[in-house]
Amino acid sequence: MTANTLIFSLPGNEVLADDLVRYGQWQRGQLQYRRFPDGESNVRFLDDVAGQDVVLVCSLAQPDEKIMPLYFAASIARELGARSVGLVLPYLAYMRQDARFNPGEGITSAHFARLLSKVCNWMVTVDPHLHRHHDLSEIYTVPTRVVQAAPEIAKWVSGNVSLPVLVGPDEESGQWVAAVAQLAGCPYTVLRKVRHGDHEVEVSVPDTDLWQGMTPVLIDDIASTARTMMAASAHLHKAGMKPPVCIAVHALFAGDAYASLQAAHVAQIVSCDTVLHESNQIGMAAALVVGMREMLAG
Amino acid sequence: MTANTLIFSLPGNEVLADDLVRYGQWQRGQLQYRRFPDGESNVRFLDDVAGQDVVLVCSLAQPDEKIMPLYFAASIARELGARSVGLVLPYLAYMRQDARFNPGEGITSAHFARLLSKVCNWMVTVDPHLHRHHDLSEIYTVPTRVVQAAPEIAKWVSGNVSLPVLVGPDEESGQWVAAVAQLAGCPYTVLRKVRHGDHEVEVSVPDTDLWQGMTPVLIDDIASTARTMMAASAHLHKAGMKPPVCIAVHALFAGDAYASLQAAHVAQIVSCDTVLHESNQIGMAAALVVGMREMLAG
Repeated sequence: MTANTLIFSLPGNEVLADDLVRYGQWQRGQLQYRRFPDGESNVRFLDDVAGQDVVLVCSLAQPDEKIMPLYFAASIARELGARSVGLVLPYLAYMRQDARFNPGEGITSAHFARLLSKVCNWMVTVDPHLHRHHDLSEIYTVPTRVVQAAPEIAKWVSGNVSLPVLVGPDEESGQWVAAVAQLAGCPYTVLRKVRHGDHEVEVSVPDTDLWQGMTPVLIDDIASTARTMMAASAHLHKAGMKPPVCIAVHALFAGDAYASLQAAHVAQIVSCDTVLHESNQIGMAAALVVGMREMLAG
Repeated sequence: MTANTLIFSLPGNEVLADDLVRYGQWQRGQLQYRRFPDGESNVRFLDDVAGQDVVLVCSLAQPDEKIMPLYFAASIARELGARSVGLVLPYLAYMRQDARFNPGEGITSAHFARLLSKVCNWMVTVDPHLHRHHDLSEIYTVPTRVVQAAPEIAKWVSGNVSLPVLVGPDEESGQWVAAVAQLAGCPYTVLRKVRHGDHEVEVSVPDTDLWQGMTPVLIDDIASTARTMMAASAHLHKAGMKPPVCIAVHALFAGDAYASLQAAHVAQIVSCDTVLHESNQIGMAAALVVGMREMLAG
């Protein structure tokens, strides 16, 4: 008997799991999740996983209460005799705590990676925040595959924005915005911080006269407080540019961040579907399936 | 330089941590806990833990959002060079999921034990729910020490209840109630389920004529929905006994369980301080310190 690939969704990831099944021609499995009155999580596989390749889909925005169900599901799949357990984590948590920023802190990203590495055979994610870690293999001991959002974002920009000019909100985003611009065949620019003296920081919008009449497209990897996007939008406005289209890969939008960004000088807010959100317009399922196939092939 | 023992509290465990320091003559350390807007936990040791014996105090009622801070704190203590990391978990979670109750479920208690065993050198807890597991060593790979609540409960009963008769709410509690009764030097009884036919179950209160004028003291290990306590109270009432004093070791009291129990035929509700709750009256710190000393001595 050959093993089947079964895709299971942790709560809230049903739409993406269905998309993965459709693009990958795999089987959809059902995972039951309950919370007992005492707050303990209980997961149950409603399909037989013995001998099968199990894939668990779980976006990790607001991660702490999602991690135990995921950890238990992966552990139980193994206990029940799954041939392999793969994790599809479209948004990977704890990647920003990648250094000891203050004495007494730790490299949380590495501790989190160790926890997940213990319960799975592989992991696939979309554009993790790789800053001080340059590759997931520095912290994950299982094979991992990073799926790029850039090609999907480029396709969306080409199909939906006329005369786009891509804008990176800060220098950190420069290389990444350049890659999207190349794929979309459009110009790009990056906002720069100009320091005057010790404290005063001004953001400069280079070459605005070049972009008159074009639609600025602000791109960032994570929109959490959305402060970066809002500051960048304000600077574009001051420079006399049109209201930008804002694209986030991961639409975390903590608290009232989304409402605040909507109220700013922006034309539209769009995101990839790595974190379920009303701004989702850019589907990552097809690209994820390519990465998953590599992992499943070993 | 000899190592010092530093006691750190995870959020909400400050009172017990202070008590442990006082009884154990140890040092109190400060752990800073923050939650980022994106929901990620951040912990920071404000005292130097390098070369020290670190103890983390964390009760695990409503566990899922408490586990990541605990896991990170333990991992970071090791990263920062602590000589040892001990966990004091006055209420230990996930002990009731100790069997595959339905196909497709797993032995969650064992998976949880494996997670904790990976990040500590020892663990001390109070009366864990040992039912299908007979000893924590079946699932924990680090040394553990179970501290008994029975002697502290017996002391409280002796000092606070005149003419007590201890009552176990079900046969499962029998042995345990017998132990408390022996320590308190008072009689006890255990409620029994009597089956009439296939479905009808009646709880019988044995020998009620023997206990006239005495104060029934209902004892259970975990009060979560408090349904067991409420049913037992109702039966005592029907049998013409006085309203009972209800004692729970672990006062989880999910939802409105505490209010419901207060509204039932009960005289008083008392608990050990393993889960911070207004019913706490029985301090476990002195007993915990004995167990911790054993673990710290290796």
